[in-house]
Amino acid sequence: MTDHTYRVTEIVGSSSESIDAAIRNGIDRASRTLRNLDWFEVTQVRGHLADGRIEHYQVGLKVGFRLEDAD
Amino acid sequence: MTDHTYRVTEIVGSSSESIDAAIRNGIDRASRTLRNLDWFEVTQVRGHLADGRIEHYQVGLKVGFRLEDAD
Amino acid sequence: MTDHTYRVTEIVGSSSESIDAAIRNGIDRASRTLRNLDWFEVTQVRGHLADGRIEHYQVGLKVGFRLEDAD
Amino acid sequence: MTDHTYRVTEIVGSSSESIDAAIRNGIDRASRTLRNLDWFEVTQVRGHLADGRIEHYQVGLKVGFRLEDAD
Amino acid sequence: MTDHTYRVTEIVGSSSESIDAAIRNGIDRASRTLRNLDWFEVTQVRGHLADGRIEHYQVGLKVGFRLEDAD
Amino acid sequence: MTDHTYRVTEIVGSSSESIDAAIRNGIDRASRTLRNLDWFEVTQVRGHLADGRIEHYQVGLKVGFRLEDAD
Amino acid sequence: MTDHTYRVTEIVGSSSESIDAAIRNGIDRASRTLRNLDWFEVTQVRGHLADGRIEHYQVGLKVGFRLEDAD
Amino acid sequence: MTDHTYRVTEIVGSSSESIDAAIRNGIDRASRTLRNLDWFEVTQVRGHLADGRIEHYQVGLKVGFRLEDAD
Amino acid sequence: MTDHTYRVTEIVGSSSESIDAAIRNGIDRASRTLRNLDWFEVTQVRGHLADGRIEHYQVGLKVGFRLEDAD
Amino acid sequence: MTDHTYRVTEIVGSSSESIDAAIRNGIDRASRTLRNLDWFEVTQVRGHLADGRIEHYQVGLKVGFRLEDAD
Amino acid sequence: MTDHTYRVTEIVGSSSESIDAAIRNGIDRASRTLRNLDWFEVTQVRGHLADGRIEHYQVGLKVGFRLEDAD
Amino acid sequence: MTDHTYRVTEIVGSSSESIDAAIRNGIDRASRTLRNLDWFEVTQVRGHLADGRIEHYQVGLKVGFRLEDAD
Repeated sequence: MTDHTYRVTEIVGSSSESIDAAIRNGIDRASRTLRNLDWFEVTQVRGHLADGRIEHYQVGLKVGFRLEDAD
Repeated sequence: MTDHTYRVTEIVGSSSESIDAAIRNGIDRASRTLRNLDWFEVTQVRGHLADGRIEHYQVGLKVGFRLEDAD
Repeated sequence: MTDHTYRVTEIVGSSSESIDAAIRNGIDRASRTLRNLDWFEVTQVRGHLADGRIEHYQVGLKVGFRLEDAD
Repeated sequence: MTDHTYRVTEIVGSSSESIDAAIRNGIDRASRTLRNLDWFEVTQVRGHLADGRIEHYQVGLKVGFRLEDAD
Repeated sequence: MTDHTYRVTEIVGSSSESIDAAIRNGIDRASRTLRNLDWFEVTQVRGHLADGRIEHYQVGLKVGFRLEDAD
Repeated sequence: MTDHTYRVTEIVGSSSESIDAAIRNGIDRASRTLRNLDWFEVTQVRGHLADGRIEHYQVGLKVGFRLEDAD
Repeated sequence: MTDHTYRVTEIVGSSSESIDAAIRNGIDRASRTLRNLDWFEVTQVRGHLADGRIEHYQVGLKVGFRLEDAD
Repeated sequence: MTDHTYRVTEIVGSSSESIDAAIRNGIDRASRTLRNLDWFEVTQVRGHLADGRIEHYQVGLKVGFRLEDAD
Repeated sequence: MTDHTYRVTEIVGSSSESIDAAIRNGIDRASRTLRNLDWFEVTQVRGHLADGRIEHYQVGLKVGFRLEDAD
Repeated sequence: MTDHTYRVTEIVGSSSESIDAAIRNGIDRASRTLRNLDWFEVTQVRGHLADGRIEHYQVGLKVGFRLEDAD
Repeated sequence: MTDHTYRVTEIVGSSSESIDAAIRNGIDRASRTLRNLDWFEVTQVRGHLADGRIEHYQVGLKVGFRLEDAD
Repeated sequence: MTDHTYRVTEIVGSSSESIDAAIRNGIDRASRTLRNLDWFEVTQVRGHLADGRIEHYQVGLKVGFRLEDAD
């Protein structure tokens, strides 16, 4: 078994619904351009307010993926 | 366009339901006395336990709002 | 009223559903072996990805419980 | 039982005597203008020196208090 | 000499010019409603970008002021 | 001389008197069930307030103790 | 309105002039290859010294930009 | 597949040889009393000095292990 | 001399041998696709355990490289 | 009024009595060799345990002093 | 080429003008007594307020310098 | 037994070989000018890269030593 190297990219997912949905939206978007996604870690939970209500949850994520030989 | 100043207040919202509900309860309460709420940031997620179950989620929030000339 | 001492144990709860469920699963498991659970604090929210989707949410928790005389 | 919201205010208490006295002085002062004080947390312990001796202990405190309907 | 208590308020000053100007704007605004301002501490330097240029510097500040007997 | 391994346990000591007493109470309680206590480190100083006064100091402690062969 | 995802890239801008110039140089360079730059955050201010004088300011920056469908 | 819960214990491994040996010594000791060890994380690297030389490396470790039904 | 801009990428190198080998493996892999590597910084040392032994060291690294005009 | 420069030195004061005494002992010792001591800040509170009791409090301190022209 | 050792000293530079000037003042002062200054890092930006205006910027700096054989 | 005071100095040791060698080099250099070295703590592991390889490991260290009466 070889010694893999992983790359960590940082994204911010958003949703008007919930924290969980903001995470899922961010992971969905990342998976469209990156292969071998392996783990994520939440770095920050923020949000935008308008008219005294939450307009968007914004969740910072570090996303790790395994580098392949061809990457 | 003028250079706005914002004030940041720190609150703890609580809910027996979920983390999202604790955040919404805190924002709702803040919006009853503060105008121009602009963003929030989660600083801490804690909770109170009783009989081996979660009785209350308690979510620390920093809430930013724009100061007006009359404030 | 006596001056209680509390012990803090660190666990990681997991769930394929949501952050809230991962917390509840961890607290449920802790309550099977520890009495007098008093509070929890989230230390980290991570997760495992497979096929570009969230396979498991993993939530780090510090859980505090009151020590009794007999403990 | 309703879901309370708490506000957290940050103060610095001081004393020429001791750390404990600086905390008590800060809490005493806060309790003159704020009701329903619920908890405090020490954020920083500093002090001012003069002639090679401690002139004042300065203790940073976050103080949480429960918001009432009328606040 | 009495043992003073200080309050710490958190603001965000902004400027389209520079970091120093954002700090000054925030302090100027705070001094319009608060007396006895004593010190500040920078907590964060951020900014808003548009068309690949800095539109606003946003500087987080903790501002400490001495509480008087009448406050 | 062998290479010892230590275990670190986290507790919260409390006292209605002072920070020092809360630390001593926590260490006293830990020494009733753990042998070879070697060091402690304060992780947090908090407290509970009631009627505008400090009801309990609560001091978080990490306590290290040397594992013996038989542990 | 759709739920945007942002990517955060980390750069270090440098200047022999000032902190503000180092930030602007870094943002200018980033805007040559990245579209939709939205915000930045300073993570670190360092510098290189030679002959007892500041030769270069080096400012660490996180820069966020909105991902488009085609990215 | 069930939703596992993990427990995290904190230890300090030591060695007169090297950092790597201190980690291995700590893990070896932990594996004598704990089953299902799953991961570790280094929290601190310290050491004891005597006669101007390193007498012991002391490496703080968080060690995670999967709880079984019977634990 | 021009004012260079650097980019910082985050990777995780792994090795079944040692921390130093995990760092070298990560740097080796990064140097296959990135030019002008200039510095690295260790952000985290973790590892995977199996059968009570270290199966892989995993070392988080920030790696800085100088951007060229053509990048 | 000239723009002073301060130097910050880090010490650890100890006492078998209390945290306050450990701070005073450290400041007393520093004042024997350093002039113009201006402030201190507590960075860490630890202690050594023996026979289940606190043998020494050890308090980490940063101590700032004003540099004079002749220093 | 030998393996150099560096020492890191911590200072606070001040200026009534700007952050950049406070850094330069601190570096200028350090260079009067220390040779081979190599780098600096900003650890804190604070300031003193009087009459609602900034009287002094105070910038904390870590300054690294290379030790020579004769030091 | 008297209440000792310790001083903490910060250095950076370097080596082209390994992290352990960089630590040893730093401690060796410190022991040439300081007596009564008592402990060290690693604060940072960095390194310089050239031609895609590690040229120098640079390890930040805090080194504590006991002050004697004559110091």
